[in-house]
This record gives sequence, structure tokens and C-alpha cells, in this order.
Amino acid sequence: MKGFKFKGITANIKKDGKKDLAIIFSTRPAAAAALFTENRVVAAPVIMGRERIKSGLCQAVVVNSGNANCFTGDQGLRDASETAKVAAHALNIPEALVMVASTGVIGAPLPMDKLRNAMPELTTDMEEDGIEEFAKAILTTDLAMKLVSRISSIKGEKFTISGVAKGSGMIRPNMATMLAFICTDLDISSALLKSALKIACDQSFNRISVDGDTSTNDMVLAMANGMSGAVVEESDDALEFQKVLNEVLLELSKMIVRDGEGATKLVKIVIKGALSAEDAYKAADAISHSNLVKTAIYGEDPNWGRITAAAGRSGAMVDPDRMDLMFDDVVLVKRGIWQGVEAEKRAATIMKNSELEICLDLNLGNFSDFYYFCDFSEKYVSINADYRS
Amino acid sequence: MKGFKFKGITANIKKDGKKDLAIIFSTRPAAAAALFTENRVVAAPVIMGRERIKSGLCQAVVVNSGNANCFTGDQGLRDASETAKVAAHALNIPEALVMVASTGVIGAPLPMDKLRNAMPELTTDMEEDGIEEFAKAILTTDLAMKLVSRISSIKGEKFTISGVAKGSGMIRPNMATMLAFICTDLDISSALLKSALKIACDQSFNRISVDGDTSTNDMVLAMANGMSGAVVEESDDALEFQKVLNEVLLELSKMIVRDGEGATKLVKIVIKGALSAEDAYKAADAISHSNLVKTAIYGEDPNWGRITAAAGRSGAMVDPDRMDLMFDDVVLVKRGIWQGVEAEKRAATIMKNSELEICLDLNLGNFSDFYYFCDFSEKYVSINADYRS
Repeated sequence: MKGFKFKGITANIKKDGKKDLAIIFSTRPAAAAALFTENRVVAAPVIMGRERIKSGLCQAVVVNSGNANCFTGDQGLRDASETAKVAAHALNIPEALVMVASTGVIGAPLPMDKLRNAMPELTTDMEEDGIEEFAKAILTTDLAMKLVSRISSIKGEKFTISGVAKGSGMIRPNMATMLAFICTDLDISSALLKSALKIACDQSFNRISVDGDTSTNDMVLAMANGMSGAVVEESDDALEFQKVLNEVLLELSKMIVRDGEGATKLVKIVIKGALSAEDAYKAADAISHSNLVKTAIYGEDPNWGRITAAAGRSGAMVDPDRMDLMFDDVVLVKRGIWQGVEAEKRAATIMKNSELEICLDLNLGNFSDFYYFCDFSEKYVSINADYRS
Repeated sequence: MKGFKFKGITANIKKDGKKDLAIIFSTRPAAAAALFTENRVVAAPVIMGRERIKSGLCQAVVVNSGNANCFTGDQGLRDASETAKVAAHALNIPEALVMVASTGVIGAPLPMDKLRNAMPELTTDMEEDGIEEFAKAILTTDLAMKLVSRISSIKGEKFTISGVAKGSGMIRPNMATMLAFICTDLDISSALLKSALKIACDQSFNRISVDGDTSTNDMVLAMANGMSGAVVEESDDALEFQKVLNEVLLELSKMIVRDGEGATKLVKIVIKGALSAEDAYKAADAISHSNLVKTAIYGEDPNWGRITAAAGRSGAMVDPDRMDLMFDDVVLVKRGIWQGVEAEKRAATIMKNSELEICLDLNLGNFSDFYYFCDFSEKYVSINADYRS
């Protein structure tokens, strides 16, 4: 991918000495678009980012992990601004073209001395293939880095989209649900980039859940620096870009769920036959967030009573006597009737897989929706009971 | 309490040989009112109960545990009706005066042979002080029986209200959230009884949560047989009854949360200063259901960032800079500002208690609400991963 450089270093914001400060730098100002958390308690970088992104331009992003700079009042806003200013100075670019993002513990002030001291190292020797270091440095409770690249072409001109995300807990869709940074060397306007980002988010980051909590720091930022030679000029070009962008975001989303705190399985729930789009969403949402469903999946128990009960309380119109329920290709319930011990045994075998699809057909209408979610293990509890200590 | 008899026996519906069949019998037909689950997937006893309660009269209730008779189709309805019929015959009362309730595993047919065979034993030698046996026989994953009695008087005439409940998982308010049976020897009309029951439920069973899942079998049934001599004639009498009924239901509700699956703490969240009643409810609801808040409480961590973040995503209007947060009498956040290490240490000490109150004052308006909920431990996961096996 042309014209993007990355770096990730240790600034000792985290207590364990792991990498915790990272940068994306485009050699020229990039068209940019972003989506932010819909939580009303928002971190300072989100407040600042909402303003700065209005220009549709961005050249550098500084991300720290280990501290969310949230619930830090006016000091937090000054610290976010100061971080951007110090980075801009070191990079010799306008301050307004620098975005910042933070993730980690809520309520503690940013250690500004550490950030200031680390800035020369961060902004020196950034590399085009430094994206893995970047991806590692933005992690918190994540066990795996999340990095996806796709190459495609428009009118014979190749372009690359690379996406990096972090997120493992406090994951529930509401526009944007964690940190994600999408870089492309395609030439596209910031307006088109924003609309494409919204469409892609709605079928990826907005359809995943680990634990139902929406973060205060969520941000998805896309940058397009136009250095590949590929240009979005017509609607067909935009469609090609959309297709690849959707793939990148969906793959990142699935990586987040697979790496969900304590998760052992990735489950796709598909709702079919709903009376309305809203009903399809409600049923998928309720099932994905049911702790009883999630613990049954952890226990590899095809507990269809809990799944149908969650749909029943979702607010969606349902008729138990019309429901079909499938685990991958095994029909467990047909028109409300349990299909017997053999079907249940086959469903139990499917549940031993690390990825599976559960399909609930309400057989009432023509609307469908889906959600990716993970199971719920003792480990989620122990991770989150001990997080700050 | 005059004129009520109870019994609880083993009918081998449960695999472990524990009591699983129970009865309440009033020596004369009682005024009756009931509230049922709002889940759209409902068990057969709920479908039957909704019809039968329309008469405003009930003389006996047969409750089985170990099998929910839910998602059992037409056979389930026939089995519920047959259970009532067999009991009515044994008791020599009209079938229409018998209600049934079931709780346990969803999706398996009721073992009718066992129920029929047990009916003579169940309906013989019922006793006025058999209510503890009844309370034990309706439990499933509950660790403790839930039984509350209060004595009061109207115009010098004493009356008793005794309430029994079961519930430990699949607990989230939506009119009625588990099984509860309220008996009183007061003389009151079924219409007044129903309105009093609604009011009392709304500030008790509808303000508790263990895990956010609403059961398919929820039922709260109240019976008043008028045998004490105390009569509700005027609004002052109704107020006295309401007061005592509220106490009984609130105490039962707290017992359910204390006995929540895997729970180690009972927490009351109080929201103050909300812009609207709806906002107050939304904030209390979101905090009570946040797995991140619940695991932090289990870890005895006064993680105020997670509490304020949950309020922020609740949909309620909030302004972080106006929030006050208290743990019992310790102010941890004042007008958005963290009150320092000493305050946090004192809050951490309070969290070692088995019961505590967290108060979030939004300082925006005049509306308040509350919720009782429990923490979330590894044990909840292990109970629910293994439940059916």
C-alpha cells in the first residue's frame, strides 16, 4: 500500500511493558471519514475527533493503549489536543491533520510526560511494512492482533485496503464499537468514503457483540491517500471499492468476536422470515446478547429452548408453532416441533466446532438479519473481575 | 393464615429425587388475580392460566418443578388441562377453580403418568403449616427457599399475607419474572386484588434482574379467601393492604436476586436527577444488565467508569460533567470529577459487603428509579453451561 507508514512502540503507559503507542502517517494528506461511538459518555479523543474530521482530511493518527482518556474532563481535552500538537510538530505537518485515539482504563489522566518523551521515537523510522507493529501496539485485553489486507483494481489500476482493529470486551454495535483504522491508497472523495464506511460498518461492526456494552472510545477512521493511481470516478468504481471495504470490515469484525474476552466459539445467528426488518434485528440482537444462550453454547448444549425464548422476549412478532431452527444443516425444530433425539445429537456434534451458524426462521414474513457473537465462559468473568487490579 | 393448606412431595419429575410437585388449597374458593410473562413464547400453563383467571376465582394451584411444559404444542395444553382435571377430581372441586404452573427444562413433554400417580398423595394430608414444603418443592436451580409472611390488621381485624416465590436464573422483569404465589385470608374483591398486585409487582418483581432473560413461564398468582374476618371496604383499607403487599413482594424479589445463579452480592442501583421517568428507568436498566458492571462488582472493584459508561449508552440523556456517583455514603464522583484515591479505597471497602447501594445522580431533572441486581461470577457460567446435561 503506497504512501502509508506505521510504527508501534513502548511508552510505558501500560504497566506490563508491552507496546502502547502507535502511529499511522500518510506521506500526503488523505481524504478521511470516521464514525464514532453513540455512547453519551465519550472520551476526549472522540470529542476532538468529531470536530477535526469535518475537514475531510487527515494525515496522521496517534493511538495510545492502556488509558482511554475518558471521564477526564477539560484536562482530558487539553491532553488530546497536546498529543496531536506534539506529534504534528515532530512530523512537520499542520496540527489540524492529526487525529488521536485512546483505549484502556477509564477515568485516569493521560501520562503526558511519557507521551511527550516518546514522540521523537514514534515519529522516526516509520515504515511502510510497520503495520503489524501498529496493530500490536493498540491492543488491550485482546489476545490476537487484527489486521486484514485486500488488493483489488479499478480500470486496471490496483489499490490496496488495509484495516487494523482492536477490541475484545465492551463490544456492542452502535455505529462503531471499538478502534479500527482503514487505510487505502485509492483516490476517493471524503464524502464517498464516509458513505461507503457507513454502509460497510452497518453490516460488520454494527452486527457483532461480545458482551453488550458499548465503549466510550469507539472510533472507525478511514483514510484514502490516492497514491495507487486507482481512482473512484463512477458508480461502478464505488461499487468495487464498497465490495472490498465490506470484506475487510466483516473480516475484522469476525476477528474481534473470535478474540472476544473468554470466547471459545464464533457464532453467526441468522434470522429469516421476520415480519419486518426491525423484528429481524430485534430477534438477532436478543439471541446474541442472552447470557443463557451464550453459556449454553460454551457448554456445547444445543439448548433450543433458550434460543426460542430469547426470540420470544425480543419484542419481535413470533409464533412458536411456526418456528424452524437449524444448527448448520441440522434441523432441530420444524414448525415448532422438536425433531427428536437423533437431530439433537447431531446438533450437539456441530456445537463442538469453533465456528457455527444458527438459523431461526420465523416463517412469518420476508425479512432477514444476522449477528456475529461469541460464547460466554468463566474466563470472561475472571478477566473482567480483575481488570483494574 | 386461615383456610389455606399446602403440600410438597416427590413425584420423580426431577432426576435427583428432590421434591417437585406442590399444591396450594383454599378451603373455600378465593378471589384471585394473576400477572403473566410478556415473553411471546409462553408455556402451556400460562396459556391456560390467562383464560382461567378471568373468572377472578381460584381454589387450588398445582405446581410442578423440573419441567416447564413449554414448547410442547397441543400436547402441552392437553397435559396442563389434564393435570388440573385430575387434581380437581381428587379435591372434589370444580376443574375451573384449579390453576397449574410449571418450571424447569423447556421442550420436553410433562411426564403425565408420574403426575397422575402422585395426585392422591399430593391432595391428602395437606396442612396449614405446609407452606415451607410447598416453597421447597417449586425450586429448580434456587439454593434457598423464598417465603415471606406479614401480619397486619384492618379495623382491628388481623390478616396475614404469605408469599412464596422461586427463581434464580432467566430472571428479568417484564410484568412477572418467575413463579410467585401470594395467599391472604383478607376479604378483598378480585378486581382490587389485581390492581394492588400490579402496583406491587411494578416496584418489586419488575425492578429486579439476575441475567436479563425473561422466562416463558412467569406467573404471579394472588389468592384472597376472606377467612380472617378482615375486609377491604374503603380506600384506607386498600392502602393498608397495598403497603403490606408491597413489603411482601419486595422482600421476595430481593430473595430472588440474593439467590441469583452464582450471585455473591445484592446491589441496589438508584438513579436520581433524570430528565424523565423513562430516562431514569433506562439508566437503571442498562447498569443492572451490564456484564462489565456485574463482573466488576463480583471483583469488588468500584469501577465507576463502567457504571457511567453503561448510563451513557442507555439512551437516557446524561452529561458526564454533571454526574455524581456514590457507593453507600462514599462520594466517588462529584460533578464529573473523580474524588481521589482515598474515596476509591473507601468505596472498595464498601464493596466487600454482601449488600450495597450505588447511587448515580444525573443532576438534570427530578425523576428517580431503582433496580435490584446481583453480581456475575464464574459460577453463573458453570451452572448454565451444564444445566441440561
